[in-house]
Amino acid sequence: MLHKERLQKLQALAQRENIAAFVIVPSASLVYLAGFSMGLSERPAFLLVPQRGEVSFLCPAFEAERVRRESGIEQLVTYTDEEGPVLPWAKALSDWQLGQRVAFEYRASRLLEYDVMAQALSVPIELVDARPYLAELRMSKDTTEQDHLQTAAQAADLMVAAIERMLAPGVSEKQLEDAAVQALAEAYPQAGVAFISVASGGRTALPHAGTTDRIIEAGDLVWVDLGAVINGYVSDITRTFALGPLDPELERAYDLVLAANQAACQAARPGVTAEQLDEVARAVIREGGFGPQFTHRTGHGIGLEVHEEPYIVAGNQLVLQPGYAFTVEPGIYLPGKGGIRIEDNVVITESGAKVLTSYRRDLRKG
Amino acid sequence: MLHKERLQKLQALAQRENIAAFVIVPSASLVYLAGFSMGLSERPAFLLVPQRGEVSFLCPAFEAERVRRESGIEQLVTYTDEEGPVLPWAKALSDWQLGQRVAFEYRASRLLEYDVMAQALSVPIELVDARPYLAELRMSKDTTEQDHLQTAAQAADLMVAAIERMLAPGVSEKQLEDAAVQALAEAYPQAGVAFISVASGGRTALPHAGTTDRIIEAGDLVWVDLGAVINGYVSDITRTFALGPLDPELERAYDLVLAANQAACQAARPGVTAEQLDEVARAVIREGGFGPQFTHRTGHGIGLEVHEEPYIVAGNQLVLQPGYAFTVEPGIYLPGKGGIRIEDNVVITESGAKVLTSYRRDLRKG
Repeated sequence: MLHKERLQKLQALAQRENIAAFVIVPSASLVYLAGFSMGLSERPAFLLVPQRGEVSFLCPAFEAERVRRESGIEQLVTYTDEEGPVLPWAKALSDWQLGQRVAFEYRASRLLEYDVMAQALSVPIELVDARPYLAELRMSKDTTEQDHLQTAAQAADLMVAAIERMLAPGVSEKQLEDAAVQALAEAYPQAGVAFISVASGGRTALPHAGTTDRIIEAGDLVWVDLGAVINGYVSDITRTFALGPLDPELERAYDLVLAANQAACQAARPGVTAEQLDEVARAVIREGGFGPQFTHRTGHGIGLEVHEEPYIVAGNQLVLQPGYAFTVEPGIYLPGKGGIRIEDNVVITESGAKVLTSYRRDLRKG
Repeated sequence: MLHKERLQKLQALAQRENIAAFVIVPSASLVYLAGFSMGLSERPAFLLVPQRGEVSFLCPAFEAERVRRESGIEQLVTYTDEEGPVLPWAKALSDWQLGQRVAFEYRASRLLEYDVMAQALSVPIELVDARPYLAELRMSKDTTEQDHLQTAAQAADLMVAAIERMLAPGVSEKQLEDAAVQALAEAYPQAGVAFISVASGGRTALPHAGTTDRIIEAGDLVWVDLGAVINGYVSDITRTFALGPLDPELERAYDLVLAANQAACQAARPGVTAEQLDEVARAVIREGGFGPQFTHRTGHGIGLEVHEEPYIVAGNQLVLQPGYAFTVEPGIYLPGKGGIRIEDNVVITESGAKVLTSYRRDLRKG
């Protein structure tokens, strides 16, 4: 159902910024504002949140009943496959007097939805990126959202545990992935796998390597990067296992990644900026001599999306505040040799940060 | 790897239409042209196919190795999280002399990718929808693609069979879905579920109802709408079961949907237009008195996407040609009572159409 309070906050932002309306396509922001979801397809659909007054929703006629039931939206504009969305929507907008500044989430809206608005409106559109405004709302997780994130983090811990139990030479990456997926399904039947990646051997040097059928060998590095989704909210954990003695360079890299993770988790608190926190982790690794091999940002926000604001990255001067939730995930990648990443989920509290994921972090054997 | 012949055809279209370049974001069209895939994220990535000369690709630095390996693309422009995509891409485009008509697929490209191009280019963009040109290429399935579609259709038949074996009062929609998913995994380990929906009872009146935990009851209508994906190509089948005598109105609707399905499958051949074929199915149902209850188009193309061109819908004057593959899926939906849909996959041949899905169509008992 519609979240009236969140919609009111968004409308207040629209008034402050002189934005005529927000166009919200099926996405995490639609879930956040309207409490329901829909797939993106060739048939456009979106929520229109005007500066003032009631929201309306454009969708295919055969979706109307479901949308009405799940959202409580009263102003539905529907279209058939034959007529398409533009004319019905133009009619609905015919007394538009809100101006031409229309905000779309650039990372969610396709040119398809923009084109429908552009064709239907009687004024040319001045494009505004809606994302910063939605992020302003979505970054501050309320206590219910924080509970959901905590549950998703516990589920991620449990998935890592299932992998560690099975991890041995002779087992494939895919088998490890399957074990984690099954453990989640058994312990949390209502949960889903947000994503999962198991990389081993030299493939660990690719930060976004996906799971393959590769068989684990004695002495391998293995990392698992995975998340669960429960009640719509996600977790995102990475752990790196060493199945035997590492060569001295990887051993040093492992120590540094662990130290960088811990330093950033401890430094996270209200008042620190995102870029300062990135620098805390980065400094540890740089001073250890692996600066160029830490090839990505320190973290990203988590919530209804696996990647959302705040981004813990150089140049982001956003000040962290209570309720902000994000990952801390330093990594070092040595092409041809291997890579190490240790990732946790934290939420900013009144005085520091609570670490939501708790699985053991040093997973070296031998 | 890059499909050079397909790229050459696209470049010929660019020359014919005076399009400076095609921007191809991660999507089915990227798979079609470049033979690899990537998730859409907050970090933009796209293939640039200029009117003439070599293609280039913009992506995050840490994806570069994988992209190079999987695509063979030589001109990679990469960016770090700190610098972002705009400046590196502006540098790559600094000698742009191709003009301002830039084509994006409206249904795949987000405003995010458009914004990166707009900021990086030295000329304002005149937006062109790339989709019709990509559809022109993608609609004509070659023999390998047709084989993949046939395999995916067989897998869909097998999933329906698994559901029929288990279908009885007392079983839940979700259990039926699980049975189909498991049957696919066992028979086709390399396949995936493209989508699956099991609806029963009054919920069948919603054309896009999703699976729930509802328990099947004696006398229920149950429809299953599902597809498998194998080698990237999909199937899309719907079958409607009646678990006992239907009331006379639904009985008549069932006969009409079946007749409409068969009439359209038989009428499909080269030279017929998409709207003519829609009318073949629609006329059967309209003449039976249920015209307004057939609330959607007769079908959609299938291939790398579950919904793609050609759309079998009123107003589409496209002439069907050999190699075009699409669904035939008439339906009748009676709110509060139930709905019936029977869907098959066909591919146009030199003289008619081959029906790829073959599961029994009349599934009434009692």
